[in-house]
Amino acid sequence: KYKIEPKDGSKSFYTVQEEKIEQAERSVLISCPAKTNEKKFLQYLSRHGDINKCFFYESYGTYAVVEFANKESLKSLHEGTAIPSINHEATVPFKSRLLSLRNTGPLDLSNGQSAPQCQPQTTIPINDLIQRMSKEDSIDQQISSLTETYQLTEENVCLRFLVCSLLKDIAAAYFPECTIRPFGSSVNGFGKLGCDLDMFLDLDGISGRNLKKPKAGLSLEYQTKRSASERAATQSILSVIGECVDQFGPGCVGVQKILQARCPLVRFAHQPSGFQCDLTANNRVAMKSSELLYLYGGLDQRVRYLVFSVRCWARAHSITSSIPGAWITNFSLTVMVLFFLQRRTIPILPTLDHLKELAGPIDKSVIEGNDCTFVSDFTKIQLQDNTETLEQLLQEFFEFYGTFAFNRMSINIRKGREQNKPEVSPLHIQNPFEPALNVSKNVNGTQLERFVALCRESAWMLQQREFNLPHSGNGASTGNNAPWGLAALLMPSVSQAAGVKSRKK
Amino acid sequence: KYKIEPKDGSKSFYTVQEEKIEQAERSVLISCPAKTNEKKFLQYLSRHGDINKCFFYESYGTYAVVEFANKESLKSLHEGTAIPSINHEATVPFKSRLLSLRNTGPLDLSNGQSAPQCQPQTTIPINDLIQRMSKEDSIDQQISSLTETYQLTEENVCLRFLVCSLLKDIAAAYFPECTIRPFGSSVNGFGKLGCDLDMFLDLDGISGRNLKKPKAGLSLEYQTKRSASERAATQSILSVIGECVDQFGPGCVGVQKILQARCPLVRFAHQPSGFQCDLTANNRVAMKSSELLYLYGGLDQRVRYLVFSVRCWARAHSITSSIPGAWITNFSLTVMVLFFLQRRTIPILPTLDHLKELAGPIDKSVIEGNDCTFVSDFTKIQLQDNTETLEQLLQEFFEFYGTFAFNRMSINIRKGREQNKPEVSPLHIQNPFEPALNVSKNVNGTQLERFVALCRESAWMLQQREFNLPHSGNGASTGNNAPWGLAALLMPSVSQAAGVKSRKK
Ligand SMILES: Nc1nc2c(ncn2[C@@H]2O[C@H](COP(=O)(O)OP(=O)(O)OP(=O)(O)O)[C@@H](O)[C@H]2O)c(=O)[nH]1
Ligand SMILES: Nc1nc2c(ncn2[C@@H]2O[C@H](COP(=O)(O)OP(=O)(O)OP(=O)(O)O)[C@@H](O)[C@H]2O)c(=O)[nH]1
Ligand SMILES: [Mg+2]
Ligand SMILES: [Mg+2]
Repeated sequence: KYKIEPKDGSKSFYTVQEEKIEQAERSVLISCPAKTNEKKFLQYLSRHGDINKCFFYESYGTYAVVEFANKESLKSLHEGTAIPSINHEATVPFKSRLLSLRNTGPLDLSNGQSAPQCQPQTTIPINDLIQRMSKEDSIDQQISSLTETYQLTEENVCLRFLVCSLLKDIAAAYFPECTIRPFGSSVNGFGKLGCDLDMFLDLDGISGRNLKKPKAGLSLEYQTKRSASERAATQSILSVIGECVDQFGPGCVGVQKILQARCPLVRFAHQPSGFQCDLTANNRVAMKSSELLYLYGGLDQRVRYLVFSVRCWARAHSITSSIPGAWITNFSLTVMVLFFLQRRTIPILPTLDHLKELAGPIDKSVIEGNDCTFVSDFTKIQLQDNTETLEQLLQEFFEFYGTFAFNRMSINIRKGREQNKPEVSPLHIQNPFEPALNVSKNVNGTQLERFVALCRESAWMLQQREFNLPHSGNGASTGNNAPWGLAALLMPSVSQAAGVKSRKK
Repeated sequence: KYKIEPKDGSKSFYTVQEEKIEQAERSVLISCPAKTNEKKFLQYLSRHGDINKCFFYESYGTYAVVEFANKESLKSLHEGTAIPSINHEATVPFKSRLLSLRNTGPLDLSNGQSAPQCQPQTTIPINDLIQRMSKEDSIDQQISSLTETYQLTEENVCLRFLVCSLLKDIAAAYFPECTIRPFGSSVNGFGKLGCDLDMFLDLDGISGRNLKKPKAGLSLEYQTKRSASERAATQSILSVIGECVDQFGPGCVGVQKILQARCPLVRFAHQPSGFQCDLTANNRVAMKSSELLYLYGGLDQRVRYLVFSVRCWARAHSITSSIPGAWITNFSLTVMVLFFLQRRTIPILPTLDHLKELAGPIDKSVIEGNDCTFVSDFTKIQLQDNTETLEQLLQEFFEFYGTFAFNRMSINIRKGREQNKPEVSPLHIQNPFEPALNVSKNVNGTQLERFVALCRESAWMLQQREFNLPHSGNGASTGNNAPWGLAALLMPSVSQAAGVKSRKK
């Protein structure tokens, strides 16, 4: 019953990406007066061509994402669009696909009309989630309620690809054949509404890189700036794009160039979408990791359900944090869930080595000397017949990591077996594609202990009969649903019972 | 005899600019091996289309400027051009029209061939010029020899427009409809080989600025970054372009962003052309000044001859300098020559007020509240019948400024008459288009005194019979031409005789 229908999950990662990138190229983002009449709005825009999709949302004002059926419509739209002229202010006349709708007419639009219906782009507060979950009838239902509440909506994913596409227009000024691809939780299937937008500037499509020189005779080359290393070239490129985003990018604020990081990046907030954005370049391994997570998440529904539950639980107890530090990251946590699912008596997930064996010629990928090959075609993967429920798995997850030999063993999803730890970090999770690296090198002993204590406490709680019963206590009759099951595991009292200090930030 | 043939000088400033800008857009700059066979080279390139013009020159290596007949040829050229791949180095894959020719063939190219003939892009040293001038038969001939040696060649002007066009490709990434125009001595008719390249980023062609909003109903606007002022917007734009030039611009070195200056600019050296470049934006008055100088220089040959002579003389005695400071600028000096020519008993040049009276409707120009209108059509201007020789004019120039009442009077080419000085600067030259400004505000008393002393000394020398005779002294018979006439005025001994210290830099 947890097997995924081929129709939903079987499109390969790159197929999905290319489709969404192409859709985003035909889309625009328009700031609208609050009381815009949706019908008049669509009528007005459709003079430029057929519209495939349109939705509204709120973020420092009302915005609409409009996807045209044909790219040519954008040209027509641009021709009719003005550069604003404001008294006593000047503008940088940079033209993008972020527009504003003005209504200079009579009271036409606000003529008794209501605001357009807006799609939510953020999650509900944790306490509301706890309330909602407590009304469910089983832990399995709680888990799916949590996942459905938190996961990215189709609209939110569209908006993420659109922001990438807007940024691409800035980068394409210099690298016309570039692409900007989202990676990380925006596309790996584990993203929560409101998660950051990780982007990767892909310059591999630039033509002229692999032109063969004639054996004999004359040939032409571009004169280009030389850099001492790939890293320096990446820094140059990000430096310029960061400057452009800062000076020209409408709605882009708080631009920081973090060029000295291990993976140089430009960070900024994109106000119209509300996304916190990280732009990197030359970061293909992270792209492969995202693809792998997408694949694992697409094999069996329970994977995503369990990851959402564990991520939410970890965030509620400040095991993870939105700021960097010595704590476990969402990425590490996800790898731990995958590893756990590989370690079931009847494994739910295959090992990465097995996925590599199944790879076809088109899947071959070597990045900076590391073999990142694995199968991309879902249909080639044969799963085993594990029928454990989500409730069982959640319980077992906490027991597994509550008793894991972290002091001796390393978590390794490539082999699907713990390995002897090659170094002394408290938590060792082998990077799937860079075997010499530890994904959780940053985690200190205290943070690992907190995690283990919370796993034990949560496992213990799930074993208690009263926690496992819906509408436990006085809830059922009075309508006052006291938290139970997974909902109860999200309560601050759990940290206290586990004896770990909650570092609420 | 000094009147300019209509064919040569009568094209309006903007007509010439537009022609040369369009030619530059069809051109590429190619670094070539020293012994490139010109015929094979042209044969190789002509596969992409007909070539209108091609010339070679030296600047840190051999370069060729190639102008195709059609812009489409560039597309074909780009398709066949590779991005270089170098071991142990990375490149920023930015594609421009600055290319390198590689010869991977057998010894074909160096097969007994000589290097292509190169067009000089720099002036000869002053001592060689003095030698050359001393062989002439009259001061008039010396003056024209100096001018012909120093003035920009047709090829050098092409190269200047090409460098602007290459830079435009960088700026056009963000402002597709922009133009980069040369101004100052590159185009005003008074440029000397090796003079700097002053450029102006013209954003006025950007569409959508003056779109009318509908009287009633909906309209769209671009969302743009706001700036506190035009100046701040200009600084933003130059900052980004400066960053791009620095990081991506092949051959662009020593990039400095001088954004706090009265007129913010980006300065850099363009190695392939050898030009020192200054890029400004929002600098329309300077463009008008260049047009005015071009017009004055095109009215009568003697104007350019006299300006070249005086500029050369001033530079030889460090009256002007290539570094900024309290000395007279070439621009001020040129205005002083123009003023002198307006002040002849029979004026050689009309006043700016007169040129304004002759203006037609298309000439109307108001920039930031200043009326910059003057006629652009040479044929509308009636000149008076002054037949003074260059020798006379040079002599009179030195006498005029050797005795000018600098302490009381201001130089004013708008009225063509000295005016009472409105402020206490030692030298006051009213800015033709911004009447409240003094073009030579920077000049201090010492520098003005040096100028006056050198004018007096030079006037005195030109009055001495032995200086005015060709081949004076022992030169004529021995072939050792001792400097005489204008050549003698360029010798360091003149500064010494004038009792002014020469600040050789
Ligand atoms: N190899 C490796 N990749 C990492 C590491 N941290 C992050 N990544 C990659 O970078 C992506 C984005 O990182 P994050 O934004 O921190 O994580 P995320 O998966 O997007 O999850 P959120 O916390 O929801 O943003 C991840 O999905 C990984 O693919 C790491 O330590 N090692
Ligand atoms: N109004 C005004 N314009 C100036 C001034 N200085 C320079 N300009 C303008 O800017 C142009 C370029 O300045 P420069 O590069 O210093 O002078 P130039 O005429 O190009 O002469 P070179 O010394 O050969 O470069 C000039 O031609 C003028 O049009 C000034 O003080 N006032
Ligand atoms: Mg992320
Ligand atoms: Mg200049």
